[in-house]
Amino acid sequence: MRLADAGDPVMGRLVSLWGPLEALERIRRGDMALGPGEVGGEAGGEEGEGGESWKRFADGLRRRLGAWRARLRGVDPKRDLAVGEACGARLIVPGDIEWPSQLGDLGDTQPLGLWLNGSVNLRFSCLRSIAVVGSRAATAYGIHMAATLGAELSGAGWTVISGGAYGVDGAAHRGALTGEAPTIVVLACGVDQCYPRGHDTLFAAVRGQGLLVSECPPEVFPTRARFLIRNRLIAALSRGTVVVEAALRSGALNTANHALALQRHVGAVPGPVTSDASAGCHQLLRQGKAICVTSGEDAIDLVGLIGGDLAPDRRGPVLPRDRLSEVSRRVLDAVPARGGAGPAAIAVSAGVDLTTALSTLGTLAAAGYVHHSPKGWRIVRRP
Amino acid sequence: MRLADAGDPVMGRLVSLWGPLEALERIRRGDMALGPGEVGGEAGGEEGEGGESWKRFADGLRRRLGAWRARLRGVDPKRDLAVGEACGARLIVPGDIEWPSQLGDLGDTQPLGLWLNGSVNLRFSCLRSIAVVGSRAATAYGIHMAATLGAELSGAGWTVISGGAYGVDGAAHRGALTGEAPTIVVLACGVDQCYPRGHDTLFAAVRGQGLLVSECPPEVFPTRARFLIRNRLIAALSRGTVVVEAALRSGALNTANHALALQRHVGAVPGPVTSDASAGCHQLLRQGKAICVTSGEDAIDLVGLIGGDLAPDRRGPVLPRDRLSEVSRRVLDAVPARGGAGPAAIAVSAGVDLTTALSTLGTLAAAGYVHHSPKGWRIVRRP
Repeated sequence: MRLADAGDPVMGRLVSLWGPLEALERIRRGDMALGPGEVGGEAGGEEGEGGESWKRFADGLRRRLGAWRARLRGVDPKRDLAVGEACGARLIVPGDIEWPSQLGDLGDTQPLGLWLNGSVNLRFSCLRSIAVVGSRAATAYGIHMAATLGAELSGAGWTVISGGAYGVDGAAHRGALTGEAPTIVVLACGVDQCYPRGHDTLFAAVRGQGLLVSECPPEVFPTRARFLIRNRLIAALSRGTVVVEAALRSGALNTANHALALQRHVGAVPGPVTSDASAGCHQLLRQGKAICVTSGEDAIDLVGLIGGDLAPDRRGPVLPRDRLSEVSRRVLDAVPARGGAGPAAIAVSAGVDLTTALSTLGTLAAAGYVHHSPKGWRIVRRP
Repeated sequence: MRLADAGDPVMGRLVSLWGPLEALERIRRGDMALGPGEVGGEAGGEEGEGGESWKRFADGLRRRLGAWRARLRGVDPKRDLAVGEACGARLIVPGDIEWPSQLGDLGDTQPLGLWLNGSVNLRFSCLRSIAVVGSRAATAYGIHMAATLGAELSGAGWTVISGGAYGVDGAAHRGALTGEAPTIVVLACGVDQCYPRGHDTLFAAVRGQGLLVSECPPEVFPTRARFLIRNRLIAALSRGTVVVEAALRSGALNTANHALALQRHVGAVPGPVTSDASAGCHQLLRQGKAICVTSGEDAIDLVGLIGGDLAPDRRGPVLPRDRLSEVSRRVLDAVPARGGAGPAAIAVSAGVDLTTALSTLGTLAAAGYVHHSPKGWRIVRRP
């Protein structure tokens, strides 16, 4: 995470090919010789696209190796972990229980790890999550709509995901904090940094009810490139992205395009045609890239279209129990109605293995049957 | 036109079956016996849908005959024509050269005739026309957008079609009057009436640059039912309908639904989500019934999708001459560049019959090659 730039697909491929430890060892030794089995494994028997992509990868490796080795001398992972711990952050990597598996959709640009600072579980918080993004230079209308959407989503039990900027991002989080669902700030700097400074109180509140998330190690400052590469995480973590206010060349449109590339749904909040701040939203609508979203309910409708694991009625968790699979019913029966239980205890009680228990709990949470409280998994009570 | 309510499908079917003179004669005699050939011609050999529809028609006839015959005693067609003529209006019926053939899409609800009051040719004015509709209770934003669209469409040579109400209708016509294209008011009362009274100056200006159109005879007052049935004419005359501002139960949505039923495109102008006056537009967008329209150019794009006779570049008349058919080129060559010529003279000069000349002139006008000036047909000059 210190050697390559965030989201570097060459590093991503190297790590998925050799694993992080062997990749690091080879960078250290300067040994990038690719065995015949490795080339074969990637390029296959055909010398078509696979061969081309492999050649680009090998070229990229050659170009980057010097820079990576130069950075290697300055890194101090133990210090990074200590600094992170000192500010209350934790580091997760792919394969950890808290790792959101949907990040795998990013392929080679999947982050190598994520720093988290806050009080909720990232993976479970993202199961029912919607990104609310838009311009920093939002109008009063944009701020109002972002805060309203944030509050309506949180009130309906949906996690809000956004950046940490002034304008739409901040208003969406503030709205979400009026409800009880988590809200997630994805930063373009280390989770120990506060950028912009004026959001220190907001970020403190987010740590208490949600998470600050970053793929940058502690002490890393935000740059323009990091904001753009960060946007793919907002799109990938959430089930769909709603653009509240965006001018024609806004970064929020970049997030929307990431969401489209990742097969997630995109919504756009319309505004006055006379307002340049809504021109990007209208462009998305005209191009058929976005659905018109006028409320939190509309936004939930939007993402309710994704995934076969959602209840057929898009508006809420009304799937009757008897439509569940046998395994799902067993896991559901093992979840307590009061207090809470850990996945291991639930797995034992349901008679399934831990992996099955975790994935089934995720499905049940997405359908609104169970939720993850500070005390563990618990049944969602119906009115 | 005096006997049945406007748009009555039973009268429409009767007239298309027997022709207007025989239909009137039979109503006068009270003789509605249907010959076996007539039944067979409609219901066909199958006793399915055709038979059902025929039965409904016969039932409808039976129920209406008394009312029609009662009204027959009071009608005075000669007086209607005299009153119309006195206020400068003319009556056209299907088959007249000025009759817009697209009204045939209305089937049995096609009007039996249209009263016109104004200075342009209805058929040719509608070839490049867009309906701009919306609420009477428009906001300042809706008025601004309607006037802007009207001006942009008229400036680009497109005819605006709308009702004559306060709010969006009036603003669209006022905008159109700033350009040189015709603007058309479709009334729900006789063309000698001025409803609303406050629009007398506007209607006078429209008569000078466009047309007042109604299927109601002179001296007929507007009623709620007549407004709704009038909306189908706005939808049918134009190539597409753009809704500027409409609350959730606005009459403009009725016009939009007529346009959809007639396979015309529908556009909606977005507005602030916080404005109830735009809720109907957002509903059309969310339902996928309308395309998002933010300018006159967008509106022209919308209707440019219809019809194979438009230039491939949707934004303007740029079809090169050599893509035209041989007949079209001959007719085009016969149209003068200055002054103007009538269709008969053009037909002779091009060596085609009058019907071919008329339909080819219509196609050429729709593609932007020729236009109909007060002096007759003339080539559109390119900058």
